[in-house]
Formats: sequence, C-alpha cells, structure tokens
Amino acid sequence: MIVIISGTNRPDSNTRKVAARVQDHYQSLGVTIHLLDLAELPPEIISPSAYAEKPAAFKKFAEAILAADGLVVVTPEYNGGIPGILKLFIDMLPFPESFEHRPVCFIGLAAGIWGALRPVEQLQAIFGYRNAYLYPERVFMPGIGKLLNEAGQFTSPDLEKRLGKQAEGFVGFVENLRRKKLRSN
Amino acid sequence: MIVIISGTNRPDSNTRKVAARVQDHYQSLGVTIHLLDLAELPPEIISPSAYAEKPAAFKKFAEAILAADGLVVVTPEYNGGIPGILKLFIDMLPFPESFEHRPVCFIGLAAGIWGALRPVEQLQAIFGYRNAYLYPERVFMPGIGKLLNEAGQFTSPDLEKRLGKQAEGFVGFVENLRRKKLRSN
Amino acid sequence: MIVIISGTNRPDSNTRKVAARVQDHYQSLGVTIHLLDLAELPPEIISPSAYAEKPAAFKKFAEAILAADGLVVVTPEYNGGIPGILKLFIDMLPFPESFEHRPVCFIGLAAGIWGALRPVEQLQAIFGYRNAYLYPERVFMPGIGKLLNEAGQFTSPDLEKRLGKQAEGFVGFVENLRRKKLRSN
Amino acid sequence: MIVIISGTNRPDSNTRKVAARVQDHYQSLGVTIHLLDLAELPPEIISPSAYAEKPAAFKKFAEAILAADGLVVVTPEYNGGIPGILKLFIDMLPFPESFEHRPVCFIGLAAGIWGALRPVEQLQAIFGYRNAYLYPERVFMPGIGKLLNEAGQFTSPDLEKRLGKQAEGFVGFVENLRRKKLRSN
Repeated sequence: MIVIISGTNRPDSNTRKVAARVQDHYQSLGVTIHLLDLAELPPEIISPSAYAEKPAAFKKFAEAILAADGLVVVTPEYNGGIPGILKLFIDMLPFPESFEHRPVCFIGLAAGIWGALRPVEQLQAIFGYRNAYLYPERVFMPGIGKLLNEAGQFTSPDLEKRLGKQAEGFVGFVENLRRKKLRSN
Repeated sequence: MIVIISGTNRPDSNTRKVAARVQDHYQSLGVTIHLLDLAELPPEIISPSAYAEKPAAFKKFAEAILAADGLVVVTPEYNGGIPGILKLFIDMLPFPESFEHRPVCFIGLAAGIWGALRPVEQLQAIFGYRNAYLYPERVFMPGIGKLLNEAGQFTSPDLEKRLGKQAEGFVGFVENLRRKKLRSN
Repeated sequence: MIVIISGTNRPDSNTRKVAARVQDHYQSLGVTIHLLDLAELPPEIISPSAYAEKPAAFKKFAEAILAADGLVVVTPEYNGGIPGILKLFIDMLPFPESFEHRPVCFIGLAAGIWGALRPVEQLQAIFGYRNAYLYPERVFMPGIGKLLNEAGQFTSPDLEKRLGKQAEGFVGFVENLRRKKLRSN
Repeated sequence: MIVIISGTNRPDSNTRKVAARVQDHYQSLGVTIHLLDLAELPPEIISPSAYAEKPAAFKKFAEAILAADGLVVVTPEYNGGIPGILKLFIDMLPFPESFEHRPVCFIGLAAGIWGALRPVEQLQAIFGYRNAYLYPERVFMPGIGKLLNEAGQFTSPDLEKRLGKQAEGFVGFVENLRRKKLRSN
C-alpha cells in the first residue's frame, strides 16, 4: 500500500486537488492507495497534552503511515517552508518507526515561481534524518493557479505525464527496496 | 519592545524555562519585553477556517509581533526541524508586515548533540525570505537535559554569560537598524 | 568601500556581466567599489600547500575583503549549489575576520527556473555562520540566457530597477550598521 | 565497485585517514573498492578553460565515478559547509550521468561540535537534486582531533562499529537498487 499525504488543512486547497490526481496514477498501476487528508486531522492534536498522549482520533493516521510500503507527500509552500500543519502532523507520529527505512516521494506546488522547492528540500532533510529512503525524482508545480482548472484537472498534459513517470519510478523503487510486488497491473 | 517567542506548546517545556532566563537578560538591560508562549495559543488556530479568518483570541499574538522592535525566537528541535506548532504560528501571522525589516535573533536547545542547529537554520532561511534582519550570533544548547536544574536555572554560568552577550549585541543591532534607543539602563 | 565578488572563474560568464551591471548602480550612488573577479584567482590556490600558506598572488583578494564596508556576492548555480570555485575562494580567506560583522548582499543567476535560489541560500547559511550581517533583499535571475543581450545589457528595465533598489537599500543598511557614510552623491 | 571519495586536498588530512578506515570495512565484506583522493587532483582543474575541456589528468577521476556501483563521500567541514575543492570536483564531473540513479553514502568529520552535519546535508541536497539514491544512515565524527591517534586508528571501537554497520547497510542498499551482488564474502 502507498499512502498519499495531502499536506495542508486549508479548505478547498490546490494541494488536495493535486493529491487526487496523484492518486489516479497509482490506481492505474494497480497499486492499493490510501489518502491522508490533513484537513481531517482531529483538532485535539494542537492540545499541549497531545505530546504525551495522542488523541484517539489520530490513531488511524498513525496506523496508515505504519502500514505504508511507501509515502507520497504533496506539499504546498507556506512562508518559504513546510506548512506548519504538515510538520505538526509529523511531530505527532510514533518515533522512530514511522519513517525508518520507509520509501518516500515528493510533489510540491506553489502560487509563486519557486514551486515549493524549499518545503520539498526541507522535507527531504527531515525524512532523510529519520532514515527514510528518498526517491530522488521530484515533481514541482510553480504557478499552480494556472495549472489547475475549476474541475481540479491539469490544464496541460505535461504534468500528468510527469506524475505518471514519477509514480511508475517510485513503485519500482519501493518494490526493489522492500522486495515485494505492489502492482496488480 | 522586544518580543520573546517560546517556540513550543509542549507542557512544562525546557524551551519555556530558557525563555524565562532570556527575559531576565533583556530586563537587566532596561529593555521592555513581552513573552509570547505558544502553549497559550488558542486551539482554534488549527481549524481549517483559520486561514481565511484568524480566531479572535489570536489577535493579541499578532499585535505583539507587529509592535515589536525586535524578536527573539527560542526553539527546540523536533524531528530535525522546527516544531510544527512554531511554523503554524508563523503561518497564521499577517503577511508580509510581520517580519519585513524586523530584527530577529535565535536561541536553540535540544536533548541531543546537534543542539537545534537545524531548526535555527531553517528559521533563519524562513525569516530571511520574509526580509527580516537576522542577528548573526546565535546561542545553541545541546544536551539541554543536563544544562537546566529543577528550578529552571542553568547549571553552569557559561550559558548565562552567552545569553547576556547575545542580548546586549542584539539590542545594539536593533537600535542601529531602527535608529531608536531601547535601553533605559 | 563596497566589494563586489563575481562568483565564478568560467570564461566570459554571465556572472561577470551581471557584476558589471551591479557595479554601475553603486557608482551612481557615489560609492567607491572594488570588483573581485574569481576568473583572476591565482592557480596556486588549488595547491594543497595553500591551506598552510596562502599564495602571494592571493594577498590582494584577501586584503580587499578585509577592507570592505560591505560585500555584494554575485553567484551562478552549479549543480544545485554554490560554484566550487567560490567556496574554495571563501575557504582561502583569513578566518574569522573576513566575514565577522561584515554586511553582505546577494544576487543569483541561473540558466534554469530556480534562479540560483539554492546557492544564495547556502551562501546565506555560510556567511550567517561566520557572523556576517545578511541584507535580506536578494535579486534572483532565472533564465539568465534571455535576460542579457550580447552587449551584456539587460533586455528589460525591470532588472536594472531591482538592482538599483537593492543597491540603495544595501548602502543604507551598511551605513546604519557601520555608522559611517558611504555615498558621495 | 564502490568508489570512496576523500573530500579534501589538504595535506595529511584527517579526512584521508578516515577514508582509509572506511576502505577496510568494504574490503572485509569482499567488495572491490577504489579510493579517489582529492589531494591528487590535477592542478589544471582550476583553470577557467576546464569548464569547456576537462584536463586529461582528470579523466581517471571521472571514469572511476562513472564505473561505480555506489559512492561513499568522506567530507570535512570548511566554513560551515562543503570544502570548496570537493564542490569544484563535483562541478567538473560529466553531467548528468555521474550521479543519476547512483547510490551514495556519507561520512562527515569536523574539529568542532557540529561534526560536519552541514556539509553532509548540503551534499545530500546536491546529490539528491542530481537524482542520486541517498543512503540514509550517515556517520558523523565531531571533535575528530580526539578520535584518531597518530597512526590514523580510531581511539575507540565504537566508530569502527558504526562504519562497519554503515558499510554493510550501504552494500545491501546498492545490491537491492542495482540488482547485482557486490560481495565476494
């Protein structure tokens, strides 16, 4: 199973729309996927007591991560970095088993010209520190406002192609490192 | 006025204890200070609706930042990076006026040997991108568990000395850049 | 005096052309400038013996840095980072006096879309660690191939405007921090 | 074949000594190794003309990289970053084939407390950008002056153990990703 993380809780986000597009590519390959949408995080995770005892409603998020053969993180850029909510989510996960030796792959999107390069590279540093296996080929989407239409579809076929190539490459990477098949197709 | 940010909401944190020690140094210099403790953030800031409309209880946090002649950020290290809650706080602040041309100074603490080098450098990148003036001399506290006693005092005079030197240097930096006096002493 | 560093030794580089444009802006403000072109570095600095004893021909480079009221670094992007030759130049400078409390400002250019964001941010981390004062407003030039004509002039007035604004802001920053006038105009 | 890069040209460096210790671990596993010592780089690579045409004496360096099943980079920390000479070496390599899909692993050493964390993380960003496969488990050696004796042996068995564990893990990583056996033992 591949878990896709939609990396913000902002309502009606472009991140969530891109995550849906990503999901399609893995499903076309016959890979089981599970999408974690940070907009559905339980509000109790911001409680100071959450450091000691995780809220019950967070359990399904943690369990999905631990069950994943690989993770796909879709992140926007907030203030030249990772969204706070995405890092808070990471801070709440069980340690060190959540990322240790788990393959991970990144997609970044941003309104501006830098295309989420910074949050993706900060995430690579954080996941790398936690001993995840980083899939090198990243997809960046600068100027995301012009890349998605109202229906949440890409306005150009190029992005679909790049997401498809990344999905295929990442699945092979995961299969090699975890020595198991993920594709039914 | 100098605003000190205690960069986590974890209860009874070492960060909050260090922030209290920092506060003393600025007060000794006769500088008015205001301490923002992220443990007191209103829980509504995690609501998806907070991106569009800030919770009323957040107003005093934003106003303190906007009124500051300089900011002192005290940060722990969570997962090799900035605490999610600290970045979420940053993401909620008015943009771009919160950091634009505002002097800022950093103190990092961590249980491990890296001493919050990474979160401090990530914060410097974020504040730098937001056109803040970065005070270069940082104070790092690796192995914080052994540096504080139960009363929240440092076990060695060296750290007090380094915090005192940083406070004095930072106040001079702020006074030069904002062309006003902060010290009554 | 402001020292401008043309950050590569590649022959006939765009970096050198941009450095010449930058020079004009400081001269218009009546600021004395000195341009260090890394294409003129003495070849002996690559000798292993250079770590212990600097080549005589390097002396004028080091002296220019030490005499500077402020530094302007113009950097291209090589392999997603700082040019090796620019870092080698930094490694050869006297330590710690070269950068300690010296104001510094950055301009990045690149053939690709990322516009030297990464080398500039790596340089900010390095200069920051060496206690330089970082001027926050940076100028980035992605797609540099289309921005310069054969005569080494910018094809659009916008870049001149941004370089002019940066030069003026940086001179004020240096004057405030070093408490002396640099402008004769 | 695994290629070990001794990442500085400083004479009699600790980096070179550590590289020799690393070499032993791969040889114990029955893996063919080749050590590239940057102290042996041809001086012509600093010539501006080297960007267009590589010096003949550089050919064997480039060929070793291209023939490697995996790379082990041993780096010191110079000015809070990668040695200039190491980045210059990277800038001279054929592009993009040198690092594309090539597994790479990192060891950092430094006189100070930060243990080359910064140069290693900068290298991970650079190699990651060039689509290398980053082996996550790194070995850091802060305070290297006390860790090596005059004979170039480690003063504690702990480091040998960590290097041995890294070598074994990295060889498995390379074998999985390149789908071939490297070990004769």
